Amino acid sequence: MRTIDWDYKKNSITMTDQTLLPGEYKVIECSTVDSLCEAIKRLRVRGAPALGAAGGFGIALAAFKSNASSLNELMDDIENAGKTIIATRPTAVNLSWSVNRVISAVEDARNIKEARMFILDEAKAIADEDVEKNMRLGEYGASLLEDGDTVMTHCNAGRLACVDWGTALGVIRSARAEGKDIKVISCETRPLNQGSRITTWELVQDKIPVTLITDSMSGHVMRKGMVDKVIVGADRITQDAVFNKIGTYTHAVLAKEHDIPFYVAAPVSTFDFERMEDEIEIELRDPGEMRYFGSHQIAPLDVEVYNPAFDATPMEYVSAIITENGIFYPPFLIDEVRI
Amino acid sequence: MRTIDWDYKKNSITMTDQTLLPGEYKVIECSTVDSLCEAIKRLRVRGAPALGAAGGFGIALAAFKSNASSLNELMDDIENAGKTIIATRPTAVNLSWSVNRVISAVEDARNIKEARMFILDEAKAIADEDVEKNMRLGEYGASLLEDGDTVMTHCNAGRLACVDWGTALGVIRSARAEGKDIKVISCETRPLNQGSRITTWELVQDKIPVTLITDSMSGHVMRKGMVDKVIVGADRITQDAVFNKIGTYTHAVLAKEHDIPFYVAAPVSTFDFERMEDEIEIELRDPGEMRYFGSHQIAPLDVEVYNPAFDATPMEYVSAIITENGIFYPPFLIDEVRI
Repeated sequence: MRTIDWDYKKNSITMTDQTLLPGEYKVIECSTVDSLCEAIKRLRVRGAPALGAAGGFGIALAAFKSNASSLNELMDDIENAGKTIIATRPTAVNLSWSVNRVISAVEDARNIKEARMFILDEAKAIADEDVEKNMRLGEYGASLLEDGDTVMTHCNAGRLACVDWGTALGVIRSARAEGKDIKVISCETRPLNQGSRITTWELVQDKIPVTLITDSMSGHVMRKGMVDKVIVGADRITQDAVFNKIGTYTHAVLAKEHDIPFYVAAPVSTFDFERMEDEIEIELRDPGEMRYFGSHQIAPLDVEVYNPAFDATPMEYVSAIITENGIFYPPFLIDEVRI
Repeated sequence: MRTIDWDYKKNSITMTDQTLLPGEYKVIECSTVDSLCEAIKRLRVRGAPALGAAGGFGIALAAFKSNASSLNELMDDIENAGKTIIATRPTAVNLSWSVNRVISAVEDARNIKEARMFILDEAKAIADEDVEKNMRLGEYGASLLEDGDTVMTHCNAGRLACVDWGTALGVIRSARAEGKDIKVISCETRPLNQGSRITTWELVQDKIPVTLITDSMSGHVMRKGMVDKVIVGADRITQDAVFNKIGTYTHAVLAKEHDIPFYVAAPVSTFDFERMEDEIEIELRDPGEMRYFGSHQIAPLDVEVYNPAFDATPMEYVSAIITENGIFYPPFLIDEVRI
């Protein structure tokens, strides 16, 4: 099943509730914009591409649940819903991008029924395009993997961060689909443990061999010859650096020290080549994430905590960037990437 | 208060219960060998030097609680107690070393009263020597730190791993005692979080400024210029490598990449220069430590886990080793260390 999808019978959204993983796999239904917003805020759905799909389907929900009696009234309803959805995670660029794209699809509609149809088609297209891009990205990336490789990854750049297939994990899925025997080492990814909670769950479901390590073991497993390649996703790629989940840079330095290729798998939409690293502010998250584990206190409550959400890996540590348009090598030139 | 000590009024052991930190600071009393063994097994007391003291005081406990009516009967009682204590953590070398040292002290005793006195004096000497060694080590190490330095550390090589003062944290305490303004960055140290639970607690108690980070942030904080030096403890130092808590090697590689000095603080007893790295087996710990956090499931229960207790850092990454006999630089020659 896709991470997030549209139920044509009920005109509602279905999604995997990621907050219950790995203990429980549950598909939940969002039949109102409010319930979708709650799901986004609580991270029941997460990951830039998955949020893109959520934004689009959210506008479709608003359109189908609206009691509007005219196109103008419908437009008011969906625009209000769009604002509410975007406000759930204001820094998630994909959310506002997809909301606006789907609202724009109404332009040529002549009546409410047609508007609903155009909206849903556009929302569905966003989800489908995401899967298609990941499949293409995966196929390109698979050419970098050899039969028998063990690939280390960090955080979750998998099916559950997207609509399906995944980026970093998509490359691994594509390589295995080609018959290559690929094993995975998943770093647990503190402080929110997306690696241990989500990546290992995805891979265990797909019967892809995976070994869980703490983030700190990265150097040790590389030195012991247990890692052939590293593949991670990306949140944003500037001219000079790859922004990704905190810890990525540590793995990149270790990969270089051990002559292990370090690959980034990300769709072209991740590129922000107009900007440089120092123009991007790194979001600092709640210190509570490191003082508590669930309700379990693991640090003095008054200890100072530094909790950046992501780090920047300079391009000199990146062996290649895998996109749906192909694989790109240093120097990374935007004109080559955006074909 | 010392981490572990003898109560001369009650003839019993007092210790900080480290399993309750950082939530609660509680000093518990062990008045029987059984209660001491329970405390060691449950890690209420931990750290090689602290366990050394525990072994010695344990034999004193056995001697004082014994109902023996002859010296021979007393010897039987303390030897049995010694075996029971050593069996609690068979790989803890310091435990058997101190048990045997204290039992040997009985040799010249002419009666039970004298035997008890010799035993207790020897046990107390072990604890005192540990504090004295750490203070000397701390003073040597302090010369490496400059006013205003921020020092990163991993795991807990502090007061609570020893009888008092600490090794890596002892260096920081000594530098601060000299009036230097030293700040600390503590890595949380997965999977058992000794960094977040114990190191930060110790430092907050002493009002030493400390910032908690996840282990994976190590590279990021170094690149951002937030770290001037790294100091860690050691479990064992062979001719070619430093064995310490898993994650140490990762920090060592990152320190080298960022031209940051990487220091190891450890007493001479840690040196095992007759052996090479490849002769030492790395203990693999319970996978459950990474599948659960307390009772909270954080990974699929059937996921494969790699959980080595420590890693080896080759000497080429070590800037200096700080001991109670002085500071040693590459090449590290055992004849220089053991003066």
